[in-house]
Amino acid sequence: MYTIGLDFGTLSGRAVLVDARDGAEIAESVFDYPHGVMDSELPSGVRLPPDWALQHPQDYLDVFARAVPAVLGQSGVEPAAVKGLAIDFTASSPMPTTADGTPLCFLEELKREPHAYIKLWKHHAAQRQADQINETARRMGETWLPRYGGKISSEWFFSKLLQILQERPDIYQQIDRFVEAADWVIWQLTGVETRNTCTAGYKAMVQDGEFPDRSYFAALDPAFENVVDEKVGRVFHELGAKAGELTSEMAQMMGLPAGIAVAVANVDAHVTAPAVKATEPGVMVLVMGTSCCHIMSSSDLGEIEGMCGVVKGGIIPGLYGYEAGQSAVGDIFAWFVDHAVPPAYHQAAQAAGLNLHEYLEREAAAQKVGEHGLIALDWWNGNRSTLVDVDLTGMMLGMNLATRASDIYRALIEATAFGTREIIEAFDAQDIAVNELVAAGGLPEKNALLCQIYADVTGRRFKLSGSAQAPALGAAMHAAVAASIYPDIQAASEKMGKLKDEVVTPIPENQKLYDKLYREYKALYDYFGRGANDVMKRLKAIKHEALA
Amino acid sequence: MYTIGLDFGTLSGRAVLVDARDGAEIAESVFDYPHGVMDSELPSGVRLPPDWALQHPQDYLDVFARAVPAVLGQSGVEPAAVKGLAIDFTASSPMPTTADGTPLCFLEELKREPHAYIKLWKHHAAQRQADQINETARRMGETWLPRYGGKISSEWFFSKLLQILQERPDIYQQIDRFVEAADWVIWQLTGVETRNTCTAGYKAMVQDGEFPDRSYFAALDPAFENVVDEKVGRVFHELGAKAGELTSEMAQMMGLPAGIAVAVANVDAHVTAPAVKATEPGVMVLVMGTSCCHIMSSSDLGEIEGMCGVVKGGIIPGLYGYEAGQSAVGDIFAWFVDHAVPPAYHQAAQAAGLNLHEYLEREAAAQKVGEHGLIALDWWNGNRSTLVDVDLTGMMLGMNLATRASDIYRALIEATAFGTREIIEAFDAQDIAVNELVAAGGLPEKNALLCQIYADVTGRRFKLSGSAQAPALGAAMHAAVAASIYPDIQAASEKMGKLKDEVVTPIPENQKLYDKLYREYKALYDYFGRGANDVMKRLKAIKHEALA
Repeated sequence: MYTIGLDFGTLSGRAVLVDARDGAEIAESVFDYPHGVMDSELPSGVRLPPDWALQHPQDYLDVFARAVPAVLGQSGVEPAAVKGLAIDFTASSPMPTTADGTPLCFLEELKREPHAYIKLWKHHAAQRQADQINETARRMGETWLPRYGGKISSEWFFSKLLQILQERPDIYQQIDRFVEAADWVIWQLTGVETRNTCTAGYKAMVQDGEFPDRSYFAALDPAFENVVDEKVGRVFHELGAKAGELTSEMAQMMGLPAGIAVAVANVDAHVTAPAVKATEPGVMVLVMGTSCCHIMSSSDLGEIEGMCGVVKGGIIPGLYGYEAGQSAVGDIFAWFVDHAVPPAYHQAAQAAGLNLHEYLEREAAAQKVGEHGLIALDWWNGNRSTLVDVDLTGMMLGMNLATRASDIYRALIEATAFGTREIIEAFDAQDIAVNELVAAGGLPEKNALLCQIYADVTGRRFKLSGSAQAPALGAAMHAAVAASIYPDIQAASEKMGKLKDEVVTPIPENQKLYDKLYREYKALYDYFGRGANDVMKRLKAIKHEALA
Repeated sequence: MYTIGLDFGTLSGRAVLVDARDGAEIAESVFDYPHGVMDSELPSGVRLPPDWALQHPQDYLDVFARAVPAVLGQSGVEPAAVKGLAIDFTASSPMPTTADGTPLCFLEELKREPHAYIKLWKHHAAQRQADQINETARRMGETWLPRYGGKISSEWFFSKLLQILQERPDIYQQIDRFVEAADWVIWQLTGVETRNTCTAGYKAMVQDGEFPDRSYFAALDPAFENVVDEKVGRVFHELGAKAGELTSEMAQMMGLPAGIAVAVANVDAHVTAPAVKATEPGVMVLVMGTSCCHIMSSSDLGEIEGMCGVVKGGIIPGLYGYEAGQSAVGDIFAWFVDHAVPPAYHQAAQAAGLNLHEYLEREAAAQKVGEHGLIALDWWNGNRSTLVDVDLTGMMLGMNLATRASDIYRALIEATAFGTREIIEAFDAQDIAVNELVAAGGLPEKNALLCQIYADVTGRRFKLSGSAQAPALGAAMHAAVAASIYPDIQAASEKMGKLKDEVVTPIPENQKLYDKLYREYKALYDYFGRGANDVMKRLKAIKHEALA
C-alpha cells in the first residue's frame, strides 16, 4: 500500500512515493516550474511593478503530469497499489478563477493582466491594503486580531484580494472564486472545490469556523461587504479529510487509478509536524531553511505576542496549532559566506576538502561559549516574531582587531538561536508549554554545531527529522488518512513519521553561559526593537530618500 | 643651508635631509631597528610576560650611524652645509640609565633583566600602576588630573617607573636617571642631559612647569616620594630650543661637522604641526595612520573631556597644545580588508588594476550619503578620546541581505569621521575653537573619499600635508630654529611647511545628511559608551573567563 505526497515549493514541485506501512520513501522526483517566480514580467512581456511576485497555474498541473509518472516509473510500484494522494503548498498564494475553476489568466482576454495570475506568498505589493486591514480591525476592536499577534500580513489572502478590488475593480468583478493555489490543485484533482482549515485559519482570518463579520469587510470597502459569500465560501475541511476522488482525466494524465482518495490541501510548514512525529502538544517543529518556521500544537489557547497565528485544528485536528517564525536564518549564514568571508578561508576550506559552511562550522565549533566576545541581532530580513517589524535590520557588536570570520559565523548562529528562544519565551509568558524542539529542513541536517547551540541556548532537547523530504512525507501521511489506511493523523504519524536516533541535549555549563548572553541579546532586542531607539527605522528612511 | 630631521618610529628610524630655505626634502633614508619591538623575549632568550613591549637603545644609535651618512651620500650635500639636527620620537618610551647616561641594559650584570630596557610606548604591563596613579590622584583631588581628561595611561612615564619600583625595587635602586628615549638620544648627541617640555607635559604630569607634589608621590609609595629629584629632574626645555652642540664623537660617526646645533627632542605627532603649517590656534592636525592623533594649539586653556592632555607650549611655544586621539582608524580599514572582504572583490580589484582599498573606495564613492543604511561605532581598539575606555568594542547595525563589502567599508570610514567629530564637539563644549582640519600620515593621502567624508561630517575645511614625511620635516624645522636660521618655529613653518594646494570643502547637502547620521552615532555612542548598557564590557569579561 502506497501513497504519494506532493510538495509545491516556490520554484519547483516534488513528488514522493511512500510506503504507507512504515513511511519508507520509495521514489522521488522534482519538476522545476517552467515560469518560476514572475517578478519582473509576464510571459507576454507585460512589465510588473516593484514588489510583485506571481506564478502560473499551468506549472502546477505540469508537476502532476511529470513528477507522478516519474516516481511510478522509478519505483516499479504497480499504480493499483497507490491508494491516495495529498499535497502541501506555499501559502498564502491565492488566485482568481471563474465559477468552474478556470484561472482568469487562462482566459485569452485576461492573460496580459497581472491581477489575473496567482499572487505568490512573497508578493509584497499589498502592504497598503494590509495596513488598512489592520487599522480597521484595531479601530473596530476585532477579536480575531490578537490571534495573529496583532497584525495581518501583506502576504495574506484578503490583503491580496483587496488589492485587486482597489487597483482593478473591473477584474475583481470577473472573479467568481478567489482560492488558495493549494485548494485549486485539489479542485483540479477531484473536480470538487474544497477549502482547507489550515490556510483559512492562518491566512484568511477564519477563527472558530467564522470569518470576520460583513460589517468589517464593508468598512474596508463597500464593495467588499459580501466578499466571503460572493467569492470564497464558508465551508472548510479538516486536515487529513478526504477532499474527493481522483478524476479519470487526472488519473489518466498521471498514470494512476481513477477514484483513489485525495486529501484536503495543507501548508508546507504545517504538514511537516506529523512527518517528524510532532503530533502531541508542546513539541515545537523548527522548519529551518532560508528562514525558520515554528510550528507547535497545544491543548490550550493563548494569544501570544507577535505570533503569525493560532488556529484550532490548524496543524493537528482537535488541537490549537501555533505558527511563529524568523524571517532569515539560513539566509543570514549564506549572506555571510557569500559576502563577508576573505579568500584565506576559501582556500583553507578547499585545502581541507570542506565547503565554506563546513569549514567555518569546524573552526567555530573549536571555540568555547563566549570566547569570541560578540553578540548579534538576527534581523537581516526584519523580525517576523515576536516584533513583526520588517523595518528592523541586523546588528553586531563586540568586534575588535582580532575578530575573525569564524567568530562572526558562530555569533550569527547564536543570534538565530537567541531569536528562537525569544519566541519560546513568548509562549512561556502565556503558559503555553514548549517541551522540546524538532528540526526539519536542510539547515540543521548539515550543521551539528547549530543543533548544539540551539539546544544550549533554549535549554531544550533538540531532535532531528529522519526524512530529508519531511513536507512531502507529511502530505503522504495525510493521503494515507484520507484513504482510510489510518484512522487519524496521529496514528499515521506514529507508523510513518521519522526521527533520527540522535537527540542533542543541552550541555549545562554552556546553558549557564548562554543564559548570560541571552540576557544581553534580550536587552538589545528590546532597546532596538521596542521603540527605545528607532535608529534602524530612521536609517531605512534615510536610505530610501537617498535612493529615491 | 640644510638641516636633518630624524623620525624615530616603532620599527625604524628615518633621516630626512632638508633645505632649510624652503623645506625641500633632498634625501631620505630609513633604517630598520635590528631588535624591533621585543614583546616575547630579550636577545638573551629571557621570556617576557604578556603585555610587555621593550626596545633596545643600540638600535637608535645605529639609526644615526647608518641613516645620516646615507642621506649625506645620496644628496651630495657638503657636510659643512648642514647646520642643525633634530629628532622626533614615539612617547612615552622611557628608559633607566646610570648617572652618565649608560642604559642599564648595557651593563653586563643587568642585560638579562627586562626592567633594564626601554619600555616602548605600547608596553601595557603597568595598568595596575596606572590605576593606582589615577585613584590616588582622584582621592587627593589633584588639580592636574583634569588636564589629562581625568586619566593617566598605563603607557606613560610614571606608570612605567612605578612598575619597576613595585616589581623590582633592587633595579629601581640602581636607576640614576629615568629618561624618555627621545631625550636620551639628544643626550647622546650633545653629551648633555636635557629634557623636552612636550613629553614632560603630556606623559609625565608636568603642568605649568611643576610636577605633582612630593606628598602625592609618597602616597603612591613611600619610596617614590623623591622620585623627581632623585631620578628625573625639574628643568625642561622649550621645543625648538638648542639642546646643545653635536659632540665630535657623534659628528665623526655620522660624517657631520662637530658643534652644529642639536634641538631639544620632540614627539612624532606633535612635531607634525609645523610641518603642515598648523602653528596658529584652531588648526587641528589629524595624524592619520593605523590610529589617529589629534593635535591642536589654542590661546585658551580648557579642560576637555577625555583628552590625552593639554600642555602649555606642548606643540608651539606660548600656546596651549591639545592632544586627543582615536585608537584605531587605518587599523579598522586594514582589519576589514584583510578579514571580511570576499574573493569576488579581490578579483574585481585585480581586474581593475587597483588594490583592494582603492577598489572599495571607488565602489563606496559611487554611493549617496545614507544609501547603505548602516551605522558603526569605531571602537575596534577601544576609545581613546573622549571616553578613554579600552574595554569598548566595535558595533555596526543596519545590515540586511543586500549589504555588500563596499557598503561596510564606507560605513567604517564614516564611523571614524564621526569619532573625530565627537572629539571636535568636546572642544566646542569648552569653547576651544576648531576652525579647520589638516591631515598628515599615509591614510588621507591615498583616500579621497575619506577626505571628503571627514569634511562633510565635521563641516570643516580639510587640508592635506604637502609632505609624506611630515614628522621628519617638522624635526628639521626645529633643527633650523635651534641653529638660529629662523627666530621661531612659526617663521620656520611659514617657509619650510608644506600643504597641498587642494582644499577639501564640505558639500552642504552631504553635511545636512551627515548631521542626521551623526545624531544617530552620538546616541549609540552615549548608550554604549557612558554606562546605559555596558554590554561590551560584560562580553569582554565573559570572553576573558572563557579563555582563562
